[in-house]
Amino acid sequence: MQRRNFLGKAGVGAAAGVLAAPAIVRAQPTVRWRLASSFPKSLDTIYGAAEVVARRVAQITNNKFQITVHAAGEIVPGLQVLDAVQSGTVEAGHTALYYYFGKEPSWAVATAIPFGLNARQYNAWWHHGGGEKIFNEFARKSGVVAFLNGNTGAQMGGWFRKEINTVEDLKGLKFRVGGFAGQVLTKLGVVPQQIAGGDIYPALEKGTIDAAEWVGPYDDEKLGFNKVAKFYYYPGWWEGGPALHSIVNQKALDALPPDFRAAWEAANEEGNTFMMSKYDAGNPQALKRMVASGTVLKAFPRPVMEACFKATQEVYAETTAKSAEFKKLHDHYFGFQRDQILWFRVTENTFDDFMASARR
Amino acid sequence: MQRRNFLGKAGVGAAAGVLAAPAIVRAQPTVRWRLASSFPKSLDTIYGAAEVVARRVAQITNNKFQITVHAAGEIVPGLQVLDAVQSGTVEAGHTALYYYFGKEPSWAVATAIPFGLNARQYNAWWHHGGGEKIFNEFARKSGVVAFLNGNTGAQMGGWFRKEINTVEDLKGLKFRVGGFAGQVLTKLGVVPQQIAGGDIYPALEKGTIDAAEWVGPYDDEKLGFNKVAKFYYYPGWWEGGPALHSIVNQKALDALPPDFRAAWEAANEEGNTFMMSKYDAGNPQALKRMVASGTVLKAFPRPVMEACFKATQEVYAETTAKSAEFKKLHDHYFGFQRDQILWFRVTENTFDDFMASARR
Repeated sequence: MQRRNFLGKAGVGAAAGVLAAPAIVRAQPTVRWRLASSFPKSLDTIYGAAEVVARRVAQITNNKFQITVHAAGEIVPGLQVLDAVQSGTVEAGHTALYYYFGKEPSWAVATAIPFGLNARQYNAWWHHGGGEKIFNEFARKSGVVAFLNGNTGAQMGGWFRKEINTVEDLKGLKFRVGGFAGQVLTKLGVVPQQIAGGDIYPALEKGTIDAAEWVGPYDDEKLGFNKVAKFYYYPGWWEGGPALHSIVNQKALDALPPDFRAAWEAANEEGNTFMMSKYDAGNPQALKRMVASGTVLKAFPRPVMEACFKATQEVYAETTAKSAEFKKLHDHYFGFQRDQILWFRVTENTFDDFMASARR
Repeated sequence: MQRRNFLGKAGVGAAAGVLAAPAIVRAQPTVRWRLASSFPKSLDTIYGAAEVVARRVAQITNNKFQITVHAAGEIVPGLQVLDAVQSGTVEAGHTALYYYFGKEPSWAVATAIPFGLNARQYNAWWHHGGGEKIFNEFARKSGVVAFLNGNTGAQMGGWFRKEINTVEDLKGLKFRVGGFAGQVLTKLGVVPQQIAGGDIYPALEKGTIDAAEWVGPYDDEKLGFNKVAKFYYYPGWWEGGPALHSIVNQKALDALPPDFRAAWEAANEEGNTFMMSKYDAGNPQALKRMVASGTVLKAFPRPVMEACFKATQEVYAETTAKSAEFKKLHDHYFGFQRDQILWFRVTENTFDDFMASARR
């Protein structure tokens, strides 16, 4: 029944004859990589995806390919992971590429841009829609290659101390939100605030800021935002399906033996699903606990969503005019999205919406 | 910058010394598995996921772990894959486990049961919700272990020659639909028909049957159903996120060296995302072509959906009363679903629905 042919005596003979026939039992090189994460260990879901990759690669290669994962700040600060990989300080990183939006807006397309793809659509774009190819053509110019490794799913819109009932309510709002969304919201009078994760809680508590967005229930609960802001808004339209990536220095990647490269690629596929599934499994309980302790869930009013959508299109028009690189990625990504939405709104959304009402 | 230590002379020495120190360079066994697929090669998405696994495992192990994939009928018929794996005729299979619903209804929980989890929720259930554990406790009793490898996403409700406007319209309808859905629809007067894939087209053309369900646009277009039925209904509520699995004979799995086992597991993770992404990327174009050539898309009317939902609960009540095994899985699965829906209808569905309307 089982077709296993252990190399018994013959195998040992082949191994002993490695000089004459290295293809039979190859003395595998040992490869050691350092991987710098942009995240702290406490975010076990987003940080964990890099650990999944390291562990799996070690298992597959009998510890011949060893990757050590380093939390933000251990080797380089979380927001300098791209630079560290580019320069070769580390062979690899795990990061949200939209952190590097300031260098070139194209980096953001890899993670999430406002009113973009959801998590499943992103997987389709990356793997079968040409996304991986077109994005890495851009990334390689900086000497790095990106591998999809994780998604948070549609994020929440964040924690607000006051209700947002009209577009007018956005005026003067001091909102901890970054990148593209900050640019969009500026058009509507919001004053975006750049504050590191650990400093959000006191700023929100003191009222130095009026609102703050982070990720979703599973992570937000850990930071305790529900204790200092009552209203939890959704959806986080600027992050409909933020993707995380493992990035690798091009030279380190090129030097990898093909079997290790294959192990690395498969392990990243596993990390990708690990993160999304772990968030999905953990978010409901966290949300229930926060709602039970007083959090009020609120959807952004439709006119607010529409104003944000309109302002987003203005920002895209400005950004595509400034960067041909961004325009190329933008057009590819949204061309793909148009078809995805056409399809999703047929059976997928209809099924989800029916289930949401049937189980209410 | 790069931390690669090739085993040069020292490595060759270690290889030559394999008898004394086998842990340093182990003479890997060669393992050959035959994998029987339940699908024909023409369904490149669903069949392709098994090929992805075989190819990746070979790459990772330098062809030391070789899996040959065999289409339905090559070794055993498509619906006998479970039996072939159980008996050890083949080491592994790739199948939809609900085909074995007739043996025990619990098998169906692994693939899809009416008004069940969507594709992303299924991943969360399997990987982080205890689904893999509880299902494989059941599967191991038959001497097989299941690994998640693919999802089609919410399927379409199928091709109908006449419109379904009321619950009454279901009465006497000869509908090619199987398993659980057939039982549910029988309660509403449908006469379920069991017809193999290749025979559906002529039956629908001649009017021997009134309707037939298959998968979704990408696969349905290949079989040409749009040429013999005008109305394309959605959603396929009996398959909100059907999962495919690689199944392995327990003894073959236990005999696998740990590194090959790790390669197998990671490769299945890759196959899982491959299938879903390839369907998502391919469905929109197929749908557009069919709509352009006259296909009329129709949602099942709300009262029809509600009647089906109610009839489904009756079938679940009957089935859980008959099988304690099924009840255990059913309760676990739907307990998980309740929380998932609570969470999805907040930010995820709201985001998707806004995008669907914004891009209309």
